[in-house]
Amino acid sequence: MENNKRPETMERITTVELANAFIDEQVNALREQIGDKKVLLALSGGVDSSVVAALLIKAVGKQLVSVHVNHGLLRKGEPEQVVEVFRNQLNANLVYVDATDRFLDKLKGVVEPENKRKVIGAEFIRVFEEEARKLDGIEFLAQGTIYPDILESGPVKAHHNVGGLPEDLQFELVEPLKFLYKDEVRVVGDALGLPAGMVYRQPFPGPGLGVRCLGEITRDRLEAVRESDAILREEFAKNGLEGKVWQYFTLIPDFKSTGIKNDVRAYEWPVIIRAVNTKDAMTATVENVPFELLQHITQRIVTEVSGVNRVLYDLTPKPTGTIEWE
Amino acid sequence: MENNKRPETMERITTVELANAFIDEQVNALREQIGDKKVLLALSGGVDSSVVAALLIKAVGKQLVSVHVNHGLLRKGEPEQVVEVFRNQLNANLVYVDATDRFLDKLKGVVEPENKRKVIGAEFIRVFEEEARKLDGIEFLAQGTIYPDILESGPVKAHHNVGGLPEDLQFELVEPLKFLYKDEVRVVGDALGLPAGMVYRQPFPGPGLGVRCLGEITRDRLEAVRESDAILREEFAKNGLEGKVWQYFTLIPDFKSTGIKNDVRAYEWPVIIRAVNTKDAMTATVENVPFELLQHITQRIVTEVSGVNRVLYDLTPKPTGTIEWE
Repeated sequence: MENNKRPETMERITTVELANAFIDEQVNALREQIGDKKVLLALSGGVDSSVVAALLIKAVGKQLVSVHVNHGLLRKGEPEQVVEVFRNQLNANLVYVDATDRFLDKLKGVVEPENKRKVIGAEFIRVFEEEARKLDGIEFLAQGTIYPDILESGPVKAHHNVGGLPEDLQFELVEPLKFLYKDEVRVVGDALGLPAGMVYRQPFPGPGLGVRCLGEITRDRLEAVRESDAILREEFAKNGLEGKVWQYFTLIPDFKSTGIKNDVRAYEWPVIIRAVNTKDAMTATVENVPFELLQHITQRIVTEVSGVNRVLYDLTPKPTGTIEWE
Repeated sequence: MENNKRPETMERITTVELANAFIDEQVNALREQIGDKKVLLALSGGVDSSVVAALLIKAVGKQLVSVHVNHGLLRKGEPEQVVEVFRNQLNANLVYVDATDRFLDKLKGVVEPENKRKVIGAEFIRVFEEEARKLDGIEFLAQGTIYPDILESGPVKAHHNVGGLPEDLQFELVEPLKFLYKDEVRVVGDALGLPAGMVYRQPFPGPGLGVRCLGEITRDRLEAVRESDAILREEFAKNGLEGKVWQYFTLIPDFKSTGIKNDVRAYEWPVIIRAVNTKDAMTATVENVPFELLQHITQRIVTEVSGVNRVLYDLTPKPTGTIEWE
């Protein structure tokens, strides 16, 4: 039976030195485990899978095949960043799959949040499986499992990691971060030279913007979520809130209201801003964003984002709200 | 042809003395016009119709028959206040009609805002007509027309005043406030001894809470709008914002989201808070309500109002938002 308990003697990785020691140790272990075989990784661009990728590139170079599936539900600029960092800067063996149309076609008419998650999850497995079958001689599957994933038991939300592959595609697992906490993963990512925007990225749900485009996912609302989210992130970064606020994003309900643009009636969507702080994700408080900044962001969103005439700020702590809306 | 132009020599009513002079003059004019006949008034409880009622009670006492139609879309405590002030304090001849069920039955399945307004307006005429037919010897119809109503031309929203009565119910009009601006009506209302809560009441749409219970009006959401609005008004009054903020209210979209109450999933509505300032109602700015107060109001609403798990603050100025959502 696999050992899934963090060794009690393991020191918490808080410095570059400790991170480098961990990296050296893992590079050796990975080389020993993998030999001259190939490893497959689903690279989402989130901090965990990005750090696993960087570690494996250091250990086995082009024996790692990273597959980045763009399901069309990523934030603005994210797929481009994955390609830039891994293909261009780290010279990785990266398979980039733009599956936007496949996902959005499958999601047509799907309204219920759990169904949306299931459709996205199942389609992700299918796309990944197709890519895996195109590759020869893969014996290992790397995953960005971290220690909290192992500690969390019971009925939690379906994991982002690649479970559910068919029987004939079972690989030996490679999970170099499985004893690390999130903060340690970040220190290791820094030591590996990954860009700060990737290492300190906010938590982002597996189904991506799909759970922030409430109800049925349509291309126009999805685009409006993506654009308004980019404006929010840009303004938070410009005004010293990036890194200070734990998580912030926009979402759009499937609901319109009357407004006015250029002196004529505009029947359009509201954008909802969520910005929260939490220690344990079990409870969360709402960030007191300066009113002038909220007004500036509102002005930008209703001006720059097509189809949006209002902006709302979610004042609800957790409980009674959840952090995400779906 | 009726004279509808404010006399150029008319002084702006800004003091109790000027208000009293206006009241004396109008009392004489009303007695002369009405003689010993009866006058009918649709008393909504808004400042205009309340001041007309108080003036007419002073002039002709029980010859005024005021009809207060409770269409079920009034704010918390409003019908009770009308009965208390006019029947109990001013000893008026008041017909109170609770037509809540009639209105809500008619509104079942009506989703489109303009249709909602039409149904409410038409049903109001019908109820008022029925009451008028029960009364004998009415020759006059009093209305709370004020000068801006006369100045406003072109296709504005259907008026609150009682137009649309059938041919055989045409009365001679009595419009004692038709040359007054809103601020003058308030000074006169004060001088007549009406309670401040009635005289300085915020503007309130004719279709009442009906246009703040977005989409189809249901009893549960209507109740949640009424209760959350009462909490907002109470907290604004307690914290010095009553009288400072031009208009503030809550509304509820026909849309739910996931939240948590007592550790279990709660799929409930959000309440949206709107608080705006305006000089001319053509443009409006959003009030910078202190964050701590917004958090306190949020806590009260999600705790005290059944079916609500989130509170949002509308950050949208006019344009691009309108003040109301429908």
